[in-house]
Amino acid sequence: MSGLELPATADLLAELAEYVAIPSVSRSATPATMRAAAEWLAARLAFAGGRVEETAGFPVVRGEWLGAPGAPTVLVYGHYDVQPTGDLAEWRTPPFELVTDGDVVRGRGVTDDKGPVLLVLKLAQAMVAQRGGLPLNVKFLLEGEEEIGSPHLPEYVRARVSELAADLVISADGAMWRPTEPSLSIASKGLVSMDVVVTGAAGDLHSGRYGGTVANPLHALATVVASLHRPDGSVAVAGFYDGVPTLSPGRRAEIDAVPFDEEEYRATVGAPALFGEAGYSTLQRLWERPTLEVNGISGGGKYTVIPHRAVANLSCRLVGRQDPDRVAAAIAAHVAALELPGVTVEVCVDEGRVPAYRIEADHPAITAATAALREVYPDQEVLLAVIAGTLPATTLFEEALGAKTLFFSFATADEQHHAPNEFLRVRRLDEGMRAWAALWRGLAAAR
Amino acid sequence: MSGLELPATADLLAELAEYVAIPSVSRSATPATMRAAAEWLAARLAFAGGRVEETAGFPVVRGEWLGAPGAPTVLVYGHYDVQPTGDLAEWRTPPFELVTDGDVVRGRGVTDDKGPVLLVLKLAQAMVAQRGGLPLNVKFLLEGEEEIGSPHLPEYVRARVSELAADLVISADGAMWRPTEPSLSIASKGLVSMDVVVTGAAGDLHSGRYGGTVANPLHALATVVASLHRPDGSVAVAGFYDGVPTLSPGRRAEIDAVPFDEEEYRATVGAPALFGEAGYSTLQRLWERPTLEVNGISGGGKYTVIPHRAVANLSCRLVGRQDPDRVAAAIAAHVAALELPGVTVEVCVDEGRVPAYRIEADHPAITAATAALREVYPDQEVLLAVIAGTLPATTLFEEALGAKTLFFSFATADEQHHAPNEFLRVRRLDEGMRAWAALWRGLAAAR
Repeated sequence: MSGLELPATADLLAELAEYVAIPSVSRSATPATMRAAAEWLAARLAFAGGRVEETAGFPVVRGEWLGAPGAPTVLVYGHYDVQPTGDLAEWRTPPFELVTDGDVVRGRGVTDDKGPVLLVLKLAQAMVAQRGGLPLNVKFLLEGEEEIGSPHLPEYVRARVSELAADLVISADGAMWRPTEPSLSIASKGLVSMDVVVTGAAGDLHSGRYGGTVANPLHALATVVASLHRPDGSVAVAGFYDGVPTLSPGRRAEIDAVPFDEEEYRATVGAPALFGEAGYSTLQRLWERPTLEVNGISGGGKYTVIPHRAVANLSCRLVGRQDPDRVAAAIAAHVAALELPGVTVEVCVDEGRVPAYRIEADHPAITAATAALREVYPDQEVLLAVIAGTLPATTLFEEALGAKTLFFSFATADEQHHAPNEFLRVRRLDEGMRAWAALWRGLAAAR
Repeated sequence: MSGLELPATADLLAELAEYVAIPSVSRSATPATMRAAAEWLAARLAFAGGRVEETAGFPVVRGEWLGAPGAPTVLVYGHYDVQPTGDLAEWRTPPFELVTDGDVVRGRGVTDDKGPVLLVLKLAQAMVAQRGGLPLNVKFLLEGEEEIGSPHLPEYVRARVSELAADLVISADGAMWRPTEPSLSIASKGLVSMDVVVTGAAGDLHSGRYGGTVANPLHALATVVASLHRPDGSVAVAGFYDGVPTLSPGRRAEIDAVPFDEEEYRATVGAPALFGEAGYSTLQRLWERPTLEVNGISGGGKYTVIPHRAVANLSCRLVGRQDPDRVAAAIAAHVAALELPGVTVEVCVDEGRVPAYRIEADHPAITAATAALREVYPDQEVLLAVIAGTLPATTLFEEALGAKTLFFSFATADEQHHAPNEFLRVRRLDEGMRAWAALWRGLAAAR
């Protein structure tokens, strides 16, 4: 690959700006908007027969370059959908406008996952244009429902097992866990989410004229939420930890050996103190322990009302052999066992449950990826880390295609994924293209 | 007053429709909108020199008819501002459009307080037009900040003590406590409100990539809210009940003698069960016991985030000699004493604190009002009830003008005050005008 001229960063950013401008928020966008994003992406895959294909939900973008007979085949996975913006008032610049700010670019989706996907496509375009081909066979599968739990991807993939067959899946989604050294992820957490809905009276009531006569759903919901954790930060739901492996002294030692400054991390997130399940270090909790978070609570408002309905949005990140359905059932049983007079409580579990995922540290893909990162970051150790986020497609690919997934994203975990002011380090675009080139070369040679 | 021809209901409703169409939401409307509502009202007071006067906040509407020398002087109080709509999706018809639905009219403010004020103005207009005057001297003071705690009314009134001097204040705000019989209110509850603001990290964080490392403000806020009450419904804040009188056996018996069907009430509000402080009946709680309600909670949303901020909006309804400032301080101290690692908690007390108010059951105004209601509702007992809501102006009038306030509103407490689908029984318009005419006549004769 030596001599390959990579696309200029300025050109890549100009294209990324167009892509970010399409507000492909899978939780709320119209089908037309989602299709526009898919069409835009498919056009960048023209060298590989890029096309938009229907699913039962938002479409997928497909393409394949299979001109390397005898070489391995990889399936490149990513997504074109993005998270909601959250509170617009908290964005320093409009979310769907790519803004360069020093050595980063800002905008919804730049790091999750529009930038990391686009750099692979631009690299492959350059290789085909300048060299006439790629070092190995590459299939592309870019979906539009990752941020809502990939509800329709399983059906799509299972119906196309031979079309999508590959020796390895390489995910352009994921993230390096911090900016200071290269890292590879050997695991990601599972996910199950649900709403707790508390209902009191038939309608909102004046808090004076009805005060003291009916239960307030917000009080009941607070009791529910407060009961989910113990003061030491552990989850108080019976059965929640079923299937969570005991953290071995060996793995504890491995994690403790990772250079990690808790005070620096605290300062970065800007919290008054770090906090979590007792008995584990911050990094042990982040990588190896499951969580139960309340992502949102809503009900009533700042006026004199007893609201008739209050909702908490819960999600659990899972590890090891935790079963998403059993975790949801354990929470529902926990809530049902609380005494909450004067209200009714419902737990509504969302679609898109995902178990945790792991790839062995000595898997050949990890070996090749480590070598590729060493080439791009010659002076730095490559850390084996964990994605504490969830990549729902991984389990699917293992089950349906029999292929492990290598996370090879050039996002970084601190880049405000899912939050206002999401950003991407500009240097990652070039580093990413160089690393993907080295990885593909390495995988082709290893055969 | 016999022979007085009252305005036709249809005409009154046509005017009320214009009035409701002005969205005078004091919490969010522009000064121009608030002024439009005030000007509209002042035009209806032309017979009494109606005018809009500035305050440090939204303006007041003033007027006076003083053509009955030797007769008593009353000050008619009401307000032209309304509550926010709340969730628009819950309104069956647009909130700022008067819609007749069977024997009620619906729209924001119809019962609180636009209808009950308008009927007094229309009655007085008719009296002046047909009889050349009123049976006693009447001053009008209609404010635009009642729903936000009347923050600027005290300054305005205290600077105009002689202009506003009256033997009695009659409030067109308030409510009959139910539709089945006439009632007079001998007390109203006080109010103090505040926000509890919990802050964690500097910004929202991805609940996967940061899960298990920082405290979640929603978890902490739930702990705060859940700690405010005991399971038996009583308030768990030390000092909250200071100044609350013990409910005497005599008052208990009086309340127990009021015909009140708990099951019917439960069915009306549509709650699965009634609930409140242990040791008291529903009506005892509603009339004689203070409450602490969480009116709203907000933070995060239904996406994979650890929100960095969560807010609860609290309000307390006060009785007896409870001091609003001391109640707020007790709650702040309670919150400060909780151990909430990894977050900061602030209690921000709102302006507009109001102590509880009471008028003696044997006050001459109550006697005259009882007689007036007997005239309009000849076959029904007049109940002496309590407004569990708050009328901030009452304490002010007692302190500044030395005048007690008689609540004489023809709203009914079940008419969705402050909630979606606020309504007013159409018959109350006519009943109200007849009752005000009888009251004024009675007060004039009693001199």
